[in-house]
Amino acid sequence: MSKEIYRGRVVNLSVEEVTLPNGATTRLEIMKHPGAAAAVPLFEDGTITILRQYRHAVGGWLWEIPAGKLDKPGEDPLDCAQRELAEEAGLAAESWHKLGSIFTTPGFCDEIIHLYLARDLRDVPMEHEVDEVIEVHRMPLEDALAMIPREELQDTKTMAALQATRLLLT
Amino acid sequence: MSKEIYRGRVVNLSVEEVTLPNGATTRLEIMKHPGAAAAVPLFEDGTITILRQYRHAVGGWLWEIPAGKLDKPGEDPLDCAQRELAEEAGLAAESWHKLGSIFTTPGFCDEIIHLYLARDLRDVPMEHEVDEVIEVHRMPLEDALAMIPREELQDTKTMAALQATRLLLT
Repeated sequence: MSKEIYRGRVVNLSVEEVTLPNGATTRLEIMKHPGAAAAVPLFEDGTITILRQYRHAVGGWLWEIPAGKLDKPGEDPLDCAQRELAEEAGLAAESWHKLGSIFTTPGFCDEIIHLYLARDLRDVPMEHEVDEVIEVHRMPLEDALAMIPREELQDTKTMAALQATRLLLT
Repeated sequence: MSKEIYRGRVVNLSVEEVTLPNGATTRLEIMKHPGAAAAVPLFEDGTITILRQYRHAVGGWLWEIPAGKLDKPGEDPLDCAQRELAEEAGLAAESWHKLGSIFTTPGFCDEIIHLYLARDLRDVPMEHEVDEVIEVHRMPLEDALAMIPREELQDTKTMAALQATRLLLT
């Protein structure tokens, strides 16, 4: 049994009565998210484009790769990654490589993020929405990775995608 | 202005009217989460304890390190990590090392997870709650890390914590 509590712009909240594999029944709060896609834009010189984005939810600025949610649950995540790369970073890529898919908060939300490596880049017009507060930066991949142990880069999709990129290149 | 939509067991949902650093005003759906802590239990032989946990929200079983939410927003995350290590993995640790803190879903949720490395381990009683469907496994850290590029390990806190552990040991 599922009862919808709230239908929002990004997420829907439901309370579900579920039977678990051990036979127990419980009541779970589940956020329904359409899913998302993100891309590491990697240039031939080993630099990447990375965003500095203001995130009201966590009260500050985070280093993040270009990403966004699927327009609808059935959207091809590659289409979504291509759209977000253009809109947020002003880039288009000829070469795309899937890095994997991750679950961000499996305890209470079904969000999955599909991660890509984007290469053979060219500039295209950027289109930031008025509620997207984004600075576009460029730095060596290794410099971005070095921010992780210093706790300067704390966004999990970005951590996972950069580490997968390093693994692919080594 | 903040309007609470739902007060739940794990998360609260609010809709907030906010003014962003660029002066734009917008309406954001924000999930309020108390925060969480997680631990990598590392034995002297290079193996770790890792859980196979059923997650209804994502419809399947995930590999995850022991973790749980703070009892209240002000709880010391180390206390939380120690409690979850005991309850979920049946372990206590003499030696604790902070691996960092991560944001799982900064677009719509304030959840932060504090990551620890737990060493000098001993067995203590396990206490799984009836709605926690958990198998306890032990494997080399390197075997767990190897599951990431194969997309067999997809939980972001676990990915971040294992990779931080590897970095610390090398």
